[in-house]
Amino acid sequence: MYIPTIDDMKAAHARAKPYIHRTPVLTSGYLNELAGCEMFFKCENFQKAGAFKVRGASNAVFGLTDEQAKRGVATHSSGNHALSLSYAAGRRGIPCHVVMPRTAPQAKKDAVRGYGGIITECEPSTTSREEVFAKVHAETGADFVHPYNDPRVVAGQGTCSRELLEQMDDLGGALDAVIAPIGGGGMISGTCLTLSNLAPNVKIYAAEPEQADDAARSFKAGHIIADDAPVTVADGLKVPLKDLTWHFVSNHVTDILTASETEIVDAMRITWQRMKLVMEPSSAVPLATILKNKETFAGKRVGVIITGGNVDLSKLPWMEN
Amino acid sequence: MYIPTIDDMKAAHARAKPYIHRTPVLTSGYLNELAGCEMFFKCENFQKAGAFKVRGASNAVFGLTDEQAKRGVATHSSGNHALSLSYAAGRRGIPCHVVMPRTAPQAKKDAVRGYGGIITECEPSTTSREEVFAKVHAETGADFVHPYNDPRVVAGQGTCSRELLEQMDDLGGALDAVIAPIGGGGMISGTCLTLSNLAPNVKIYAAEPEQADDAARSFKAGHIIADDAPVTVADGLKVPLKDLTWHFVSNHVTDILTASETEIVDAMRITWQRMKLVMEPSSAVPLATILKNKETFAGKRVGVIITGGNVDLSKLPWMEN
Repeated sequence: MYIPTIDDMKAAHARAKPYIHRTPVLTSGYLNELAGCEMFFKCENFQKAGAFKVRGASNAVFGLTDEQAKRGVATHSSGNHALSLSYAAGRRGIPCHVVMPRTAPQAKKDAVRGYGGIITECEPSTTSREEVFAKVHAETGADFVHPYNDPRVVAGQGTCSRELLEQMDDLGGALDAVIAPIGGGGMISGTCLTLSNLAPNVKIYAAEPEQADDAARSFKAGHIIADDAPVTVADGLKVPLKDLTWHFVSNHVTDILTASETEIVDAMRITWQRMKLVMEPSSAVPLATILKNKETFAGKRVGVIITGGNVDLSKLPWMEN
Repeated sequence: MYIPTIDDMKAAHARAKPYIHRTPVLTSGYLNELAGCEMFFKCENFQKAGAFKVRGASNAVFGLTDEQAKRGVATHSSGNHALSLSYAAGRRGIPCHVVMPRTAPQAKKDAVRGYGGIITECEPSTTSREEVFAKVHAETGADFVHPYNDPRVVAGQGTCSRELLEQMDDLGGALDAVIAPIGGGGMISGTCLTLSNLAPNVKIYAAEPEQADDAARSFKAGHIIADDAPVTVADGLKVPLKDLTWHFVSNHVTDILTASETEIVDAMRITWQRMKLVMEPSSAVPLATILKNKETFAGKRVGVIITGGNVDLSKLPWMEN
C-alpha cells in the first residue's frame, strides 16, 4: 500500500488547479452564537461538479499517461465521485465508466450523464456494487479510480485543507480544529495528510451519521468494521473505510463524533436558512455534531468542510413526512 | 423632492460599512453557456439580514441625530426592508415599528421579530398598508423610513453597484450592462445613481414579473401606473414606483423586461441547482428575463443583482401543484 506524501499533495494541487475552484470560506455570526465557537465554512458546495471530489478525480485523470488515458477511467460511487470523475475525464476528452446504485438520486444520475459519464446500475449494497464493477472494469480496461482508497485521490482531497490554511491568513489566523464528514474517509485522509504536515497543532475531527457509524465503531475497536448498506439521509456517507483511509484515520484523527438523522436535517435546514447555502445532507453532519458537543469546541476556531451541494431539490428531507 | 447625489451615496457607504457585508460576486460557466453571455452575480442573498435592503436601512438609521433616534424608526414593507430596518435599529439600540401584510411568509415575520422589530399587521394591499401605517406613525412619532421612496434609502442601495464596479477589477474589467429586479424601484434607483456617475457607459436594465408589470407599463406610458395588490411568486416586487424612484427609472433605465411566473420559478430552481445559492423568487427575475431576451445580452458582460435569500424553505414554489 502506497501512502501519499505531502509532496504528492502539492503535485496534485499543481496538476488539478486549472480544473478546480479555489472555493470561498464563509462565516455566520448567527451560527457562531448558536454553537459557542467560531466556525469557518470551506464551501466545496461551490466546487466544480458541486463537490470536493473533483480535487482527487482531477489529480487521478490528469496524472495518467496518454497511453493509459486512451482506455478511459472507471469507478463505482454513490454520486459525487461519479460526477467529478466524469467532469475531469470530459475535460481530458476520455471516457468515464460509472457503476452507480439504481437508488441514487435521479438528479445525480442526470448530472453524471450531463458530464458525459456512462452509467451501469447496481443494487444499493457494497457487495453488488463491487461485483458489477469488476465486470465493467474487465470489459473496458479502463483505469480504476476508487472513490477514496487511492493515493491519487487522497492527495487530491488534501488540497482543500491547504487552501483553507492559506485563506485563514485573511480571517484572523490559525485554526484550533478542522471537522469534516466521514464516509469512506477520502476527505478526512486528505485533511490528515495536509494538516499533520503543514499545521500539526490543528486537531482533526470526523463527523458521521449515527445510522452509518461504522467509522466511529472502527475507531473505538482499533480495526476496520464495515456495514453493508446502512440507511441514512446523508447518502454520501454510507461506504466503509478501506486500508489507505484507515491508515490516516487511525493515526491522525482526534475523535469521530456522530449525530442522529433529525439532528443532521435540522443542521442542514438552519444552514440553508441562515447562510443561504444549498448543501447536501452529508455536509450538515459536522455542524450537527458541533451543536451536540458544544463543550468540545467551546471558544475554539473551527474549520468546517461543506463537502458538496448536489441535492435533489424536489425531495428535500424536511418536506418528507 | 430631494434627489440624492453621488456624494450622498459615498457618505452612505462610509456610514453603513460597519453594519453590512461586502458580498461576493460569483459566476457559473453552465449558466453563461445557457444564456450566451457572461454573467457576474452580486450575491446580496449573503448580505446581513439576507437582502440588499440593509444598505439603505443602515444609512437611514445611522444618519439620525440622537434626538430623532430616541423615538425609533417605522416602516411598511412586504418583508426584506422590515428585516433590514429591524436589524439596523437593533444595532443602534432603538425601536423599529413595522406594518406588514398578514399574508407575508411566516419565515419573514419570525425573522423580523427575531431582530427585535415590532409588527402591526395590515391587509395585503397598498391601500390598507398605508392606512394602518399612518396610525402607527402618529402614535409612536418614529422616523418614517420608506422602503424605497426615500433619498437615504436610494443612496444606501447605490453602494451595491459601487462594490460591484470595484470587484470587477479582479474579474476581467468593465461591464456592458447591469440588471436588477424592480418592484418599488429602490435598488434600480441606487444602481442608476451610482452607474450614471461612476460608469455612465454601462446600460441599466430592470426585470419585473409579467403579473406585476406596473413599472414596465409606466416606462412605456411615460408616467407612473400603480396596481393595487398584484399576484406573483416574486413577493418582493408587488409595490408600485413612487416619485423619487420614477425620477431615476425614467432618466437612466434602458429597458424594463418581464418574465412569466413559470420562467421565474425555472430560473430560481436552476440557480439553486447549479450555483448552490438559496435565493428568493424576486432574485430570479433578472436571469429569467436574460434567458428570454438572449439577443439583447448576446456576448455581453452583465452584472446581475441577486437581491436576497429570504425564503420559506417549507414552501418552495416548484413544490406547489
